[in-house]
Amino acid sequence: MASIFTKIINAEIPCYKIAEDENYFAFLDINPNAKGHTLCIPKKEVDKIMDLDEDSYMGLMAFSRKVGKAIEASIDCKRVGMTVIGLEVPHVHVHLIPLTNMQNATFQHKVSLSEEEFKETAAKIIAAL
Amino acid sequence: MASIFTKIINAEIPCYKIAEDENYFAFLDINPNAKGHTLCIPKKEVDKIMDLDEDSYMGLMAFSRKVGKAIEASIDCKRVGMTVIGLEVPHVHVHLIPLTNMQNATFQHKVSLSEEEFKETAAKIIAAL
Repeated sequence: MASIFTKIINAEIPCYKIAEDENYFAFLDINPNAKGHTLCIPKKEVDKIMDLDEDSYMGLMAFSRKVGKAIEASIDCKRVGMTVIGLEVPHVHVHLIPLTNMQNATFQHKVSLSEEEFKETAAKIIAAL
Repeated sequence: MASIFTKIINAEIPCYKIAEDENYFAFLDINPNAKGHTLCIPKKEVDKIMDLDEDSYMGLMAFSRKVGKAIEASIDCKRVGMTVIGLEVPHVHVHLIPLTNMQNATFQHKVSLSEEEFKETAAKIIAAL
């Protein structure tokens, strides 16, 4: 069965899309640690980051860097952090998180955004890409 | 002033070293989230990951992948996660963390290891490299 992220790529589940190319896709995390929290994923469904072949891994990291720099340029924060965990959705995803304090990096504190705020946030990041 | 990580690279501060090449260095985190928690750093002192030039960033990610695969092959865990935060030490570092549960990824729960356990852990990872 397709992962929830594959359904997002295929537009079977809606998302606030940030960027897409032939092999990778970026969209706002719907349960963000901070405003601007974005997920970057390979279109190919692989569970563990260390199991990605070298080209796919390096491509994902290059893609994440471009998106991360756009987040850092457009969202109020001290820096953008990166986290790969993957214990919940078995489809590699790089969390790009605007960090102001350590709490933003723990995944223990979430922020609630309105649809309007998600749209505004996505538009800001896209404009900086 | 040199960062604490530059002092580790220069052996002014001791560490449990895992790997080193011309541009990058890996060693066990002394305050680990889980046994096998390793830091990968560029020898060049840069504060924020998004400020690394593209070649240095891609090199760090390739180096982290090699070390991460060795950790996953040698340390008991479900998978190896990656995290870049950097709010405390202003010298880019990629955390490679053997994950068994979400707690290992939050930086809120630490494990205490003896010198003997650190040495054993380092030796296992090095053997898998």
